[in-house]
Amino acid sequence: MSPIRGYVFDAYGTLFDVHSVVEAGRAITSDPVTLSATWRQKQLEYTWLRALMGTYADFWVVTESALRYTIRRLGLVATEAQVRRLMEAYLTLACFPEVKTALGRLAGRPRAVLSNGAPQMLAAAVASSGLAALLEHVISVDRVKTYKPSPLVYALGPETLGVAAGELLFVSSNAWDVAGAKAFGYRVAWCNRTGAPEEELGVRADLVVDALDKLPR
Amino acid sequence: MSPIRGYVFDAYGTLFDVHSVVEAGRAITSDPVTLSATWRQKQLEYTWLRALMGTYADFWVVTESALRYTIRRLGLVATEAQVRRLMEAYLTLACFPEVKTALGRLAGRPRAVLSNGAPQMLAAAVASSGLAALLEHVISVDRVKTYKPSPLVYALGPETLGVAAGELLFVSSNAWDVAGAKAFGYRVAWCNRTGAPEEELGVRADLVVDALDKLPR
Repeated sequence: MSPIRGYVFDAYGTLFDVHSVVEAGRAITSDPVTLSATWRQKQLEYTWLRALMGTYADFWVVTESALRYTIRRLGLVATEAQVRRLMEAYLTLACFPEVKTALGRLAGRPRAVLSNGAPQMLAAAVASSGLAALLEHVISVDRVKTYKPSPLVYALGPETLGVAAGELLFVSSNAWDVAGAKAFGYRVAWCNRTGAPEEELGVRADLVVDALDKLPR
Repeated sequence: MSPIRGYVFDAYGTLFDVHSVVEAGRAITSDPVTLSATWRQKQLEYTWLRALMGTYADFWVVTESALRYTIRRLGLVATEAQVRRLMEAYLTLACFPEVKTALGRLAGRPRAVLSNGAPQMLAAAVASSGLAALLEHVISVDRVKTYKPSPLVYALGPETLGVAAGELLFVSSNAWDVAGAKAFGYRVAWCNRTGAPEEELGVRADLVVDALDKLPR
């Protein structure tokens, strides 16, 4: 098998720990875990639905729409200031504890982020988590105005790095993103942090790790 | 406003009551409502993901994949015979109580189903629910090998009925399907049977009813 010539990482849940979103939720609910889970699920649904409908709006807009839906769905009440603070949690994310070590070990080959996030959201999260020096490229779907798992998105990796998808290792904690990247043609590692079940989408990861410092060099 | 010249209905949850799926679930779990809800959510996710990935498989395949995922996710055990019986629940659905009266009232203008369902699934459900004589067209996404809310799917309505989307009333209980049809250009009624919150997808139904016999003639 040909050597790996570069790494492409998903952002949210893979590099960035979205737990701080749960913390921010305590201001409006005694069950911030349900708020966070419903918000995340709806955020993803809206990316899929808008991509299919052909009505792209960037991830900041989608994330806020999903939050407003979630607040109504759960019967919560939030002031505009509280909505703003919840949204701002996305701009000040921490990375998972092993991420810096893991990215450091992979230095020497290009390391990229390929994310649904809007450019300004990704820039803020990369800065707040201290990853800027460990990433050669930060790529947003905004360049093609659609969302994962569209092949148009995955194509941005090989195009930006100048390396064929089959020589890139794509790394995601999201099982459906793993399926999309594999269907596109990447070599794929599933960082299954939570022991989640595999998706039934007809493709499988090439390898499964439980943290990013287990990735092969 | 121009008159309505035809009706296009979603199938599952709109005409067909999928409650019998819950009943079938009792064979493998004491919580068939969670089984049914997880199965349905994953079934929809797989249609969206496969449509975006460009890896269409028909709704029978997707429905079975979603069931197998759900069984694993919930930590259940099911024999192949039990899996078959759960799947067969989709072939013997009843319609909601008001559907026959409602469709009867709309006679004189073409009445169509436009559904994610595979052709043989739709044929079986239309027959088992006794709706064959009340529908002029049963249209499956299988003709275009993708899923709602792709515009390619919604285009099948005007194309089959020979009526512009703006003169057709599209009717669905699924809020995201309402958004997709409205974005495409139909006039849209949301049959909100359960008091569900509206989606935040930037479009709204033209009218909301709580049962199909409230539709305008």
